[in-house]
Amino acid sequence: MTTSTALLFADLTGVAVFAASGASAAVAKRLDLFGVIFVGFVAALGGGIFRDLVIDEVPPLAFADWRYAVTAAVTAGIVFWFHPQFARLRTTVLVLDAAGLGLFTITGTLKALEAQVPAVGACFIGMLTAIGGGLGRDLLTGEIPVVLRREIYAVAALLGSVTVVVLDFAGLTGPAPLTAAAALVFGVRLIALRRRWSAPVATAQPRVGRRPAGGS
Amino acid sequence: MTTSTALLFADLTGVAVFAASGASAAVAKRLDLFGVIFVGFVAALGGGIFRDLVIDEVPPLAFADWRYAVTAAVTAGIVFWFHPQFARLRTTVLVLDAAGLGLFTITGTLKALEAQVPAVGACFIGMLTAIGGGLGRDLLTGEIPVVLRREIYAVAALLGSVTVVVLDFAGLTGPAPLTAAAALVFGVRLIALRRRWSAPVATAQPRVGRRPAGGS
Amino acid sequence: MTTSTALLFADLTGVAVFAASGASAAVAKRLDLFGVIFVGFVAALGGGIFRDLVIDEVPPLAFADWRYAVTAAVTAGIVFWFHPQFARLRTTVLVLDAAGLGLFTITGTLKALEAQVPAVGACFIGMLTAIGGGLGRDLLTGEIPVVLRREIYAVAALLGSVTVVVLDFAGLTGPAPLTAAAALVFGVRLIALRRRWSAPVATAQPRVGRRPAGGS
Repeated sequence: MTTSTALLFADLTGVAVFAASGASAAVAKRLDLFGVIFVGFVAALGGGIFRDLVIDEVPPLAFADWRYAVTAAVTAGIVFWFHPQFARLRTTVLVLDAAGLGLFTITGTLKALEAQVPAVGACFIGMLTAIGGGLGRDLLTGEIPVVLRREIYAVAALLGSVTVVVLDFAGLTGPAPLTAAAALVFGVRLIALRRRWSAPVATAQPRVGRRPAGGS
Repeated sequence: MTTSTALLFADLTGVAVFAASGASAAVAKRLDLFGVIFVGFVAALGGGIFRDLVIDEVPPLAFADWRYAVTAAVTAGIVFWFHPQFARLRTTVLVLDAAGLGLFTITGTLKALEAQVPAVGACFIGMLTAIGGGLGRDLLTGEIPVVLRREIYAVAALLGSVTVVVLDFAGLTGPAPLTAAAALVFGVRLIALRRRWSAPVATAQPRVGRRPAGGS
Repeated sequence: MTTSTALLFADLTGVAVFAASGASAAVAKRLDLFGVIFVGFVAALGGGIFRDLVIDEVPPLAFADWRYAVTAAVTAGIVFWFHPQFARLRTTVLVLDAAGLGLFTITGTLKALEAQVPAVGACFIGMLTAIGGGLGRDLLTGEIPVVLRREIYAVAALLGSVTVVVLDFAGLTGPAPLTAAAALVFGVRLIALRRRWSAPVATAQPRVGRRPAGGS
């Protein structure tokens, strides 16, 4: 199996895992078959679509390579039909999800760097590639994105994207160091799950007055 | 009336219909005049903006041709002022909405194919062009997108986009076959409304444990 | 201080203000540190990212110039740690927010015109640049965007973007007239806050039947 074949296989595995996470969330919200497949599609490919739009790689890979959309749709359909059995695989899903997180962070950061995005921007794009689909999934299912509420998740991704940028500056963009970076994200995420690590939350405080309506 | 004039007229009719659907949803949510016009704008042009970003046709038509934005804004304003009378037209709106669905599916798929997007990607882009505005409308009004919850709606669009791709491969992209494809979407949607067809929903099941935070 | 330095300084001030508005909304929703920084990032840079995608200026400034992302992240972090004291500055924030609104409206409209976007489209893009971040902030925190519900906010921005387009046609795009346009938005917004001006809301009416599922 060549490197590129290995990469594609890994990439599609990540797509399948994230599609499953989206589909199971949609099933829990009682969405219909189409809704389940659609949320699975967004969870699996949303981050990558955002990444490709931002680095001007159009049409985004999700639309340019049929294997991505089909993998996401088929996986979501399977979850729709077999979700009770699937629910028992929750731990497996969490582990695969952590693997997908590491993978998408690294590939997203690399694509941004190849597209001449400066270091800081590439770190953000890499992280957004990894968490973007989950954000879309939660918005579509009417949830405040879980990634913003608790757990070390996006932080693990950010750690990975920063590592990739550093490796890139050091000229260490071979398979070995990049795999190590992905493993770092994977490891941090698993330990965070295991130890129930969470990012701090500000001390409670009642809302007072009105907040500014704006922002840009 | 030339073909292109006919197409523009049909296109703007679809814009007006979708703007009306967005505006009526916004009125029901007690949004102010600006909010009603904004949601109407998103419902009418959101899908097309997404389509144009994905196929790199920038600035998107919604910003490049003033007639689109003005049609959406004026229609939404009319709904704001006359919504009680408008509410009585619900059936008419549903029929016009089905017509808009067919139209936007066909034009969206064709534009994707012309932009050299491969077949599968073009099908998804065509469908997203047709349902994207409705998704945006529901997200802005704090609803889980109705298109994900019930009814044959997006599926009718997908059926139409697949048809267009097949016709394109067969070289049948003249007005007649394309009109037939639009009519197919229109018909399926109307029958689904009439017969209250819905996509299947997975058997109920209580949420257990935490779901993965991720996705890309 | 040169004009461009002044502009960058003003721009980053607007970024900081909007990041603060996003962060305070996130703190109120009990999001964790990452969530607060992320929502601050979206509130500060979301509108600009949308603007740059639509005018095909990629990668968007938010990713191309590290000072934007860092300003947003640092400001949000400060709000996270000092939000009780920050809450007391609410009036100050509202005033700064109004200033940011004026600034982003003007720069957004100008960039759209420079990118050859026609007048009407440029007006919408300028307004969306100014309100887009606030929309993203509210969607991420599970709120129907406040800008759609009440207050003269987006309307002030629209007034400013139309003014800029008119000035541009008149060839008056020097610092003086543009500053006047920004001051106009700033003033209208402050007076609206002071006088509690609101856009009209349609008379109440119970939802009947189902609304169309569509839109594009």
